[in-house]
Amino acid sequence: MQLALGIDIGGTSTKLALIDAAGHITARSSFSTSDRADEHDFFRHLFAGIAELVGDSVELVGIGAGAPSANEQQGTIENAANLPFSPKVEFCKTLRERYNLPVTLVKDSNASTLGEWHFGAAKGMKNFLLLTLGTGLGCGIVANGMLLGGEYGHGGEAGHICVQPHGRACGCGRLGCTETYVSATGLKRTAFELMATTMHDSPLRSLSYDAMSARHIYEAALSGDFLAKKAFAETGEVLGRALADMAAWFEPAAIVLSGGLAMAGDLLFVPTLDSLERHALAFHKGHKINVIPSALGENDAALLGAAALVWK
Amino acid sequence: MQLALGIDIGGTSTKLALIDAAGHITARSSFSTSDRADEHDFFRHLFAGIAELVGDSVELVGIGAGAPSANEQQGTIENAANLPFSPKVEFCKTLRERYNLPVTLVKDSNASTLGEWHFGAAKGMKNFLLLTLGTGLGCGIVANGMLLGGEYGHGGEAGHICVQPHGRACGCGRLGCTETYVSATGLKRTAFELMATTMHDSPLRSLSYDAMSARHIYEAALSGDFLAKKAFAETGEVLGRALADMAAWFEPAAIVLSGGLAMAGDLLFVPTLDSLERHALAFHKGHKINVIPSALGENDAALLGAAALVWK
Repeated sequence: MQLALGIDIGGTSTKLALIDAAGHITARSSFSTSDRADEHDFFRHLFAGIAELVGDSVELVGIGAGAPSANEQQGTIENAANLPFSPKVEFCKTLRERYNLPVTLVKDSNASTLGEWHFGAAKGMKNFLLLTLGTGLGCGIVANGMLLGGEYGHGGEAGHICVQPHGRACGCGRLGCTETYVSATGLKRTAFELMATTMHDSPLRSLSYDAMSARHIYEAALSGDFLAKKAFAETGEVLGRALADMAAWFEPAAIVLSGGLAMAGDLLFVPTLDSLERHALAFHKGHKINVIPSALGENDAALLGAAALVWK
Repeated sequence: MQLALGIDIGGTSTKLALIDAAGHITARSSFSTSDRADEHDFFRHLFAGIAELVGDSVELVGIGAGAPSANEQQGTIENAANLPFSPKVEFCKTLRERYNLPVTLVKDSNASTLGEWHFGAAKGMKNFLLLTLGTGLGCGIVANGMLLGGEYGHGGEAGHICVQPHGRACGCGRLGCTETYVSATGLKRTAFELMATTMHDSPLRSLSYDAMSARHIYEAALSGDFLAKKAFAETGEVLGRALADMAAWFEPAAIVLSGGLAMAGDLLFVPTLDSLERHALAFHKGHKINVIPSALGENDAALLGAAALVWK
């Protein structure tokens, strides 16, 4: 049976899957990335995982992979802050030499975007954005039917656009970046701001910053807590305005929302769509920009996109 | 001699030029657009202008045109706020029937962008932006070697991105749009804000809002007027931050600045580049994003781009 191998390298774990041309995952496994000593240790575990997954009956036709800090032109992983790697790891070369197969590497955000494009909510679209609302805000952009990467592959940084001058400090060094408001962490920061600026009682007031997660806020909101619901409403307000700006730049057929925060459903989508409609330019009013949840499991988009590198 | 006819339709005047394949303008003329009664009157003047320009010795190989509110797919001009036209004007069809030549119509901002791309400051680049800083802020974007227009041709609206939440009212209905700060009008609004919020003496205080133009502020700044120089500095501050965001989205090889305000030179460029460097993401610091003035006469970019539609 002809199958592609998809690899999704993350800071916590690395996932492997065998995927057919229709985007069906026939087998999968994973191993810890963070427990690896260095890239040699990583490759040893990767090779072992592949051997176990592939077995004897599979004909592997190619390997696709997504990783943070991927240099797509070079096939290398460079200066990855959250991987236990040397500054430059020859990913494609190492796998090509071992398996004598085509190997392609893309940035993790692009892998998820390819997954949504070929097998998910954005199937066949020429213009769309994928926003991944997790700890931070990841983004992939397809414009004119091509991935948008910029001159050196550093484009599409939706998480690091200034949505509030002199706003919240961001890990990137700028102030007021989108992801300081619109992400699981941004939601928590908004909850803390609301605890500071309002007098509303809330069970969230019993939790420390370190102890609180977006899930606490989600559960409080579901229980009717005013402050928690307001934190979601304010997050949606900023997200909707950011989506209106994305529409003004890219006029996508759809904007796909994925990641943990997107799974909050109406709590996030209702204020977001309301804000988008208010902020949209005239020709985008009337809900012209589709905002849709991902059609893929959060863990599957990158794997399927990696496989799409082989099949498409 | 084989030549292309370029047409640049503006609210004030319509410009015509004969242009060879190397981008040299061999003849030009213009007529008033605003004095026309309707599109029939416009076409009469256009046909007369073409007849006079082309004469007997020219072999016209095609016609390219740029116009506001152009529907590029349909070859029509639709709901143009500043043209004396019916809601829908069949531009390409009318010219094709009369001249039996290939006719192409693009949005005015895209015409200028094509001009800079094929004959100007962005020659051969795969990723760049053109910003036209006039009464408003126009924009054209080339990404992955293609014009970026979005799903229905309404993308690339750099003038209507929110750079200041709850900021200045914009003609588009939004608040805080880039062009309310970064344009000839935006510069004037900043000067008026500074007159309201500071006590600095300035010759600008003798002018009404209606009487003042960006040129007054430019000349006052050249004479050393503090308030006028501060108006330019604040304009550059917002523009630089906006350019950092454009770099984060598109990572262009260059951003080309054209239009009247861009001709203010160092008064605008020095604070803009300083702000861009401060706001840029880590991989764009060190002046990685080239910000360059247009290499074409302000009136020529759109004409040359229109001709490029014929030649390229």
